Amino acid sequence: SVNPDLGSERQTASFSVERLTALLDGGAEQTRIRRAVVEAIESDPVFSRENQYFQTQNERYEAAVKKAVHLQKKMREMGWTENGPEYTYIYRALSGDVAFLLHRVFMRSISVLGSDTQIAKWIPLATQYKLIGSYAQTELGHGTYLQGLETTAVFDTATQEFILNTPKISAMKWWPGDMGRSATHTVVFAQLYIHGKCYGIHPFIVQLRSLRDHSLCPGITAGDIGPKMNFEHIDNGYLLLKNVRVPRENMLSKFCEVRPDGTYVRQGSQQINYFTMTTVRISLISDEVLIPLKKACTIAIRYSVVRRQSKLKPGEQEAKILDYQTQQEKLLPQLAAAYAFHFTNDYLQELLDRGYREIERKNFDVLPELHALSSGFKAMITQHSTAGVEICLRACGGHGYSLLSGLPSLYTKILASCIYEGENTILLLQTARFLIKCFMAASAGQPVPPSVTYLAAVKRGKCPAKNKLDFLSPDIYTEAYQHVAVRLTSSTAAKLQDLIQSGVKKHDAWNQCTVQLVQAAKAHCHYIAVKNFAETVEKLETKAGIQKIMKHLCDLFALHGIFSNTGAFLYDGYTSAAQMDMVTAAYLDLLAVIRKDAVPLVDAFDFTDQSLLSALGSYDGQVYQRLYEWAQKSPTNQMSPAYERYLKPLLHNTLSKL
Amino acid sequence: SVNPDLGSERQTASFSVERLTALLDGGAEQTRIRRAVVEAIESDPVFSRENQYFQTQNERYEAAVKKAVHLQKKMREMGWTENGPEYTYIYRALSGDVAFLLHRVFMRSISVLGSDTQIAKWIPLATQYKLIGSYAQTELGHGTYLQGLETTAVFDTATQEFILNTPKISAMKWWPGDMGRSATHTVVFAQLYIHGKCYGIHPFIVQLRSLRDHSLCPGITAGDIGPKMNFEHIDNGYLLLKNVRVPRENMLSKFCEVRPDGTYVRQGSQQINYFTMTTVRISLISDEVLIPLKKACTIAIRYSVVRRQSKLKPGEQEAKILDYQTQQEKLLPQLAAAYAFHFTNDYLQELLDRGYREIERKNFDVLPELHALSSGFKAMITQHSTAGVEICLRACGGHGYSLLSGLPSLYTKILASCIYEGENTILLLQTARFLIKCFMAASAGQPVPPSVTYLAAVKRGKCPAKNKLDFLSPDIYTEAYQHVAVRLTSSTAAKLQDLIQSGVKKHDAWNQCTVQLVQAAKAHCHYIAVKNFAETVEKLETKAGIQKIMKHLCDLFALHGIFSNTGAFLYDGYTSAAQMDMVTAAYLDLLAVIRKDAVPLVDAFDFTDQSLLSALGSYDGQVYQRLYEWAQKSPTNQMSPAYERYLKPLLHNTLSKL
Repeated sequence: SVNPDLGSERQTASFSVERLTALLDGGAEQTRIRRAVVEAIESDPVFSRENQYFQTQNERYEAAVKKAVHLQKKMREMGWTENGPEYTYIYRALSGDVAFLLHRVFMRSISVLGSDTQIAKWIPLATQYKLIGSYAQTELGHGTYLQGLETTAVFDTATQEFILNTPKISAMKWWPGDMGRSATHTVVFAQLYIHGKCYGIHPFIVQLRSLRDHSLCPGITAGDIGPKMNFEHIDNGYLLLKNVRVPRENMLSKFCEVRPDGTYVRQGSQQINYFTMTTVRISLISDEVLIPLKKACTIAIRYSVVRRQSKLKPGEQEAKILDYQTQQEKLLPQLAAAYAFHFTNDYLQELLDRGYREIERKNFDVLPELHALSSGFKAMITQHSTAGVEICLRACGGHGYSLLSGLPSLYTKILASCIYEGENTILLLQTARFLIKCFMAASAGQPVPPSVTYLAAVKRGKCPAKNKLDFLSPDIYTEAYQHVAVRLTSSTAAKLQDLIQSGVKKHDAWNQCTVQLVQAAKAHCHYIAVKNFAETVEKLETKAGIQKIMKHLCDLFALHGIFSNTGAFLYDGYTSAAQMDMVTAAYLDLLAVIRKDAVPLVDAFDFTDQSLLSALGSYDGQVYQRLYEWAQKSPTNQMSPAYERYLKPLLHNTLSKL
Repeated sequence: SVNPDLGSERQTASFSVERLTALLDGGAEQTRIRRAVVEAIESDPVFSRENQYFQTQNERYEAAVKKAVHLQKKMREMGWTENGPEYTYIYRALSGDVAFLLHRVFMRSISVLGSDTQIAKWIPLATQYKLIGSYAQTELGHGTYLQGLETTAVFDTATQEFILNTPKISAMKWWPGDMGRSATHTVVFAQLYIHGKCYGIHPFIVQLRSLRDHSLCPGITAGDIGPKMNFEHIDNGYLLLKNVRVPRENMLSKFCEVRPDGTYVRQGSQQINYFTMTTVRISLISDEVLIPLKKACTIAIRYSVVRRQSKLKPGEQEAKILDYQTQQEKLLPQLAAAYAFHFTNDYLQELLDRGYREIERKNFDVLPELHALSSGFKAMITQHSTAGVEICLRACGGHGYSLLSGLPSLYTKILASCIYEGENTILLLQTARFLIKCFMAASAGQPVPPSVTYLAAVKRGKCPAKNKLDFLSPDIYTEAYQHVAVRLTSSTAAKLQDLIQSGVKKHDAWNQCTVQLVQAAKAHCHYIAVKNFAETVEKLETKAGIQKIMKHLCDLFALHGIFSNTGAFLYDGYTSAAQMDMVTAAYLDLLAVIRKDAVPLVDAFDFTDQSLLSALGSYDGQVYQRLYEWAQKSPTNQMSPAYERYLKPLLHNTLSKL
């Protein structure tokens, strides 16, 4: 029985929800495969997430290992393979609650960095789970600056071994997933020393735990780093190495080799390494960022049509909170962003595929652009989406604050995406460095990559909009975004040059411009996201109301960006105050339009109740019943554990005797 | 042994840290009393928070009850009383980790809403803890809209009792603190019915649990609402009432009484009730908002001078991350805001004291202004401070994400302050309603309260600043803030009138303006905060460098607000683009200036290591050692609980037999 306040929202959809779902999945056949995977996973009680909000860190970890082991069996049963069409949906169906994710990174690093002999030896072992791998790069003292890692690996020609050490506390490996309690092996990144000379960071396969009884190997100190804001199911670990010896063959040697006599040989191109980072950054956008944002929108929007509070019109029934303009202004821009970033992700995937084909033909020219875009968008999308999930949480008031709403854990998990795989500020500065370089090149008439050719065409014009409807024209707002991106890049390039010409050293000048460089990088990504959304909408099927509603969302995404950042558009008079009033009016009008389709738009994300795990966001909208049913299952619902020892003596007035 | 990277920061302080601490405390004598309380609490092992990050919700709750009971004993021992000068420091010293906070609300509600007879009966019982009280207002279906509460209390003339019921699931009481497992009594808010007629919401004292064995009383269903984002130590509860009868004397009857024959009598003024809400909103700013923000600043800034990452200048040592402009731009505005809001809080306290004196003389004229300011500032300060704590967390990268940094729990706790005691959007709209009313009155030449007289004096001028140094003049930036606040209020008032004149109904027109009304309310509060900070600085002692550094912080607070919200200032040309460049330059210059005093400025907050409970923020800055020591204590540091059942069979390749 669906809550009628939710049911009525579905009856007035202006478009076909099923068609939109297929569009998001990349075709109806993909939707079918995805649903089959979800069905298989969710009908299996081992994969249940039912008690998740009530479990301790130890229980969460144990359940994740159990699921990971069971998943191997399930995949064989179902005939799913790692290269099959189902594979991409498994992680989504499990909501990421599974162990051994680093085992895959362990395998990938051997495949990418290992010699053919190493691949032939280790990959079968890993595939058959005769070992459990991890990936030990980050240290207590070093995250983003890899050159600064302090772990050492000294080559001993006498024994043909590397001797690995943690020379000081800051060199301790810290954070590697699956390493705290599960992994038997890991890839350790360490400074290579041969005959006293340092050759920089290299990867070494190191055994951590006995394959017989799981006890720590000699010289190894390892454990769990303790509680975190989320990821309770993962045993992020620490690792201290004391004279740990590994054979010469354990240094991954596709690109660099140490010969028996200690000769160091570099071979092949390492550029492919940067490509790996790019791949990871792009893939995390869909798995770790878009899904939580879409889930948060689903929960908050469904709740907002079921929750009634206060009266909009005197004498009438209390209003659905989504009918309040302020609630629309909180939630609908997040919904528009979820769609915008979905299409940005498609754009990045396509770019990546094209890049991959080029690289296979030994053409590495695309790498700088790909690196700049993947860095900038990783930062921009994680940042916006994290803020978006927080807005959804707060928009649900007190109930959003309960773990049972599902929103707190979505927030605490997505927040991490701003930090891992490149801290966002660092990434934006890498994008900015690319922008400045391309701007200088373009100004000097040199060719630049496609995504930044616009930097060459600096136009001094003004926004031509004459009324609020003009701001629903993609040309108008895309041009405005372009103008801002060009201005911020060119003005920061000018400041940088001025500082250098006035005698400030290059690195100091750079540091003094970083706040503005970050702004320029964000403006660039925002422009590309708006442009890509508008171009995507143009190509959509006009049938079934899909194109029309997507056009509304595109407009909302664009206008929300202007409305929230008016200064950038007003600054040089490109947009006038009167035009900004038109933007505001058009933006507020759009909220009321999209509000009508809000529920169908989140239904199209097609999340099952089990994957949402939310008392507020269930498909049937029986919010209050769910909250009460779930709360009763909490382990805190028993007689007060403080009664006999503390409450009873207090109430019986034996306070003074305590 | 203090980390030398932290120690060196303290040697170059431009001001006396001890004097600044005394200033923040309100005098050296207050500092002395506070430190004595902290010393007494922290030296008592019962109050230890040492294992907090490793405890389950049940363990946290039990510890909080234990502390609450022990506190009664401690207070007697130390000679501390609820009215004594030490009392305000106890909660801070305990970092709020204590039960029975609602017991105090229970007592206050009886004192405020009860008759003299009721006070004489219940207050002594509560004071002696012969019962444990709670406060049951919020329901599953109603939070902000109190008139909509659905619990009923029907008067039965035959038995002279009220019969309390939860007529439907949405009427279930939900959230009351201390009620889930501890309380024996509560104040229930319910719709009063006499002879079938509804008289609205009234408060009733209801017994929940037996005083003999703590079992639930007949007709009562109560329990804990389960896991939340924080507040694990509090047993927020639910309550279902089924024909629960309480005697006529249990309706709190200072303002309304039901006579034996069912006659309803209203007496006295209820205006004082609004005053109570105002008091609570103001008091939570210092206890629940400023302290977490100051702690987060302390942790993030100390960590940022100890953490070295990457090189600012090639060939040199890795740089302290606080030397990067982007890191300064994240943290220093939060530090400036912490000081700004500290002084805003002083301003509100003074206003409240003055208001209280007026009310005692039966003059209620100050209430609307007090209500508007306390609502607006509650919303503005909780919002800014929550965002500030999140920025501090993210600025510490991966280590900030560990619970051991202390930052995640500060964030998850302060976030609740945006929701409780009035959801922020609702509060801002109340402030806006006051602003619009006053603007209309002022425009009509009528007198308005002091804080809004500026609305009458709409000036059309331009910002007179000629260079970046002019923007360090409080007159210049205060005027700019005032201009924006007036513009947003007047333009929204105009939009509202236009809509109404064009035939839109009043309530629809209001709803269509709410996004802009919220902006106006925020601008008003921001203006008052800037103005108050500037006026405070002017009055400070010029000795010991205090005034100078506070002036820098005031400038930073003001310019950061402009820099982050340029559109509001550029919109009508009050500030030109060239002037905005001056703001940017002045703002970025200030970051470098304040960076030098950053550590002394957080030292002045005078938090002990135990109260920070942070591996990153300790006074000695031994960050990495602390993280490692603390992680080793985690209950996750034991042999994998998944080994025997899952890992061993997997690794021994018995997968198929599982």
